[in-house]
Amino acid sequence: MDNNATTMTDPLVVEAMLPFFSDLYGNPNSLHKFGTATHPAISKAIDQVYTAVNASDTDDIIFTSCATESNNWVLKSIWVDKILNGDKNHIVTTEVEHPSVLSTCKFLEEQGVKVTYLPVNEQGIVEAHTVKSFITDKTALVSIMWANNETGMIFPIKEIGDICKEKGVLFHSDAVQAVGKIPVDLQSVHVDFVSMSAHKFHGPKGIGALYIKDSQKLSPLLNGGEHMGGRRSGTLNVPLIVGMGKAIELATDNIEEKMASIREKRDRLEDALISAIDDTFAIGDRNNRTPNTILISIRGVEGEGMLWDLNNGQIGASTGSACASEDLEANTVMLAIGADNELAHTGIRLSLSRFTTDEEVDYVIDHFKNAVARLRAISSSYAKVKPTPGGEVQECELHH
Amino acid sequence: MDNNATTMTDPLVVEAMLPFFSDLYGNPNSLHKFGTATHPAISKAIDQVYTAVNASDTDDIIFTSCATESNNWVLKSIWVDKILNGDKNHIVTTEVEHPSVLSTCKFLEEQGVKVTYLPVNEQGIVEAHTVKSFITDKTALVSIMWANNETGMIFPIKEIGDICKEKGVLFHSDAVQAVGKIPVDLQSVHVDFVSMSAHKFHGPKGIGALYIKDSQKLSPLLNGGEHMGGRRSGTLNVPLIVGMGKAIELATDNIEEKMASIREKRDRLEDALISAIDDTFAIGDRNNRTPNTILISIRGVEGEGMLWDLNNGQIGASTGSACASEDLEANTVMLAIGADNELAHTGIRLSLSRFTTDEEVDYVIDHFKNAVARLRAISSSYAKVKPTPGGEVQECELHH
Repeated sequence: MDNNATTMTDPLVVEAMLPFFSDLYGNPNSLHKFGTATHPAISKAIDQVYTAVNASDTDDIIFTSCATESNNWVLKSIWVDKILNGDKNHIVTTEVEHPSVLSTCKFLEEQGVKVTYLPVNEQGIVEAHTVKSFITDKTALVSIMWANNETGMIFPIKEIGDICKEKGVLFHSDAVQAVGKIPVDLQSVHVDFVSMSAHKFHGPKGIGALYIKDSQKLSPLLNGGEHMGGRRSGTLNVPLIVGMGKAIELATDNIEEKMASIREKRDRLEDALISAIDDTFAIGDRNNRTPNTILISIRGVEGEGMLWDLNNGQIGASTGSACASEDLEANTVMLAIGADNELAHTGIRLSLSRFTTDEEVDYVIDHFKNAVARLRAISSSYAKVKPTPGGEVQECELHH
Repeated sequence: MDNNATTMTDPLVVEAMLPFFSDLYGNPNSLHKFGTATHPAISKAIDQVYTAVNASDTDDIIFTSCATESNNWVLKSIWVDKILNGDKNHIVTTEVEHPSVLSTCKFLEEQGVKVTYLPVNEQGIVEAHTVKSFITDKTALVSIMWANNETGMIFPIKEIGDICKEKGVLFHSDAVQAVGKIPVDLQSVHVDFVSMSAHKFHGPKGIGALYIKDSQKLSPLLNGGEHMGGRRSGTLNVPLIVGMGKAIELATDNIEEKMASIREKRDRLEDALISAIDDTFAIGDRNNRTPNTILISIRGVEGEGMLWDLNNGQIGASTGSACASEDLEANTVMLAIGADNELAHTGIRLSLSRFTTDEEVDYVIDHFKNAVARLRAISSSYAKVKPTPGGEVQECELHH
């Protein structure tokens, strides 16, 4: 139930990678046959990624070590290219981006860059007209995620892209939670840079990519040899490139069908929990969420306590981003949505995958209900807002 | 014969990694057992790396995606920390560094940083007193490789480290061609930052590390979540971390014995080629080279032609760094050593590994000799310097 943090590498992906560790292990940049023997497999993987996101031949898709690298690359190179060596000084992003965007923006602020962090609305998204009103003639970049990692909410990327195009501002989207989960068609939207990560769609950890529209200029983050046209250096990671290609193909082939199957299980899980447990709600309209995600708030139940109880039942879940889950902090997305501090500690994220079974969903429903009962019985905060017999629930609804 | 470009992932390493793709695939930063179940394997890998280079508990070793990332990290963060936000403006390096250092230095020069590129002497190394004479009170960093990728020549790291310590200047060494090939003991030398790469010692591609002495400050290159103490973000790549740990243990356990075995084959190969083929010499004193490497110069034979012929015989070799081998350029190390342009096109690098067999060495000797005969027969440049009967060879010796 924690597939937004990472996913199982599909055994078919492992099988595709295996020959490139100890047999066809040549360096693709070598001039000899043993190195170039890897080229067909790399070409195939590149084709698989281009096809999956409908990139054009004039676009670049450059493999990186992860989406954190892709995000750092765009933000830091825009800083170098357009701010340090240009006349811009401003970046627009949101309060709910992944830490790899937010933390890089904090770094850039220390270097004198102005950053606008847009809040999300009660649905957990940023609307396009809000973005428009913060773009100035000093804005170098708009960086807004395609779908949120904690809520699964899908942002209006087409509308934001149209505004950026109209304003002549570069647009980056961290699509880590979108690619492989929902259709991402880079011909139907205007986005200059798109980050993706294989281990979020049953590919291996340690490989991601950056899409660069029309192969436009962007200084490298990793300078070095002429790998990938000099755009990202480092010996090509053949097994993981092959693995990413295979994984994105498996994830996006018949994606509507896969989405429907996951959505059916997710909706059944969500309905069962919301209907069976009082004072519980899921964040955001589920028709505008990635089909695998629920962020559920349970009044009176601390997220960490709930995680602990689920963990005892062999269920892995999250209070938010795994990247920040070692901190016992309030859920930042819920705070951004407008939750009070107490409620923002009650979020539990359940994220399914195409490998999630109906039996697992049944088991989670059962264990989850019992866990809430156990924890509410010892909750001091829940006692205060507990509905009185025949009375109205107080304070337990939030913009909802 | 191209193990300095990349090596076979040891099947024992693949075996160690396999459980972490599709079984124990949890995100180590998750709070649940399924994520934390990966911690013992990560701890073991960290121990294996610390042990291999004799790092101290007060030092940091941070996993990266490759040594190119490690090198970019040190150079670009020193730029941010000590130059953009400090009072330094100068970096000292050498003309023969790996492209990931040289190209990053070129980038930093574009940003206004002064870079001194030290030439190597006729043995292909930079002497410590040369380094000393170029350090000023504005020098932020000295970056000098531990061993050269093309010649295998080992640099006087202890002496250079002592000078940097005395001068109070930070010292980085790209040890990609040293770790796993020769003993690297980070308690017996003074180096602040050391880059390494797993795929050069039979580990997987896509994982490297940066050693940071006394866990000193260095801004991250990849900002994000709190992974590895906030020093390098991105989901921990568990399979590859486990693979790097296993590979470095296998490479450095009884390293003297492994070195002796490789050295015996390398010396036999070198002796056979030099003695059987006229006007041929190897670059640098082999007692001061990594035990697996020969850079051989064959008067009158273009390196690319030689590669082509070797390739037809199923032998993979290199004219220099694989990272630059798509360019038909003169060997930069040979030019730095002082070779004329024609001779600098004649270098062929042969690099062995612990998996190289005596039969393979015999085969290479045989094929190599025939290849030189074939190519010299059609060489216009060789005819000009060919020894006349009873006469002296002209122009074919170089500082040698």
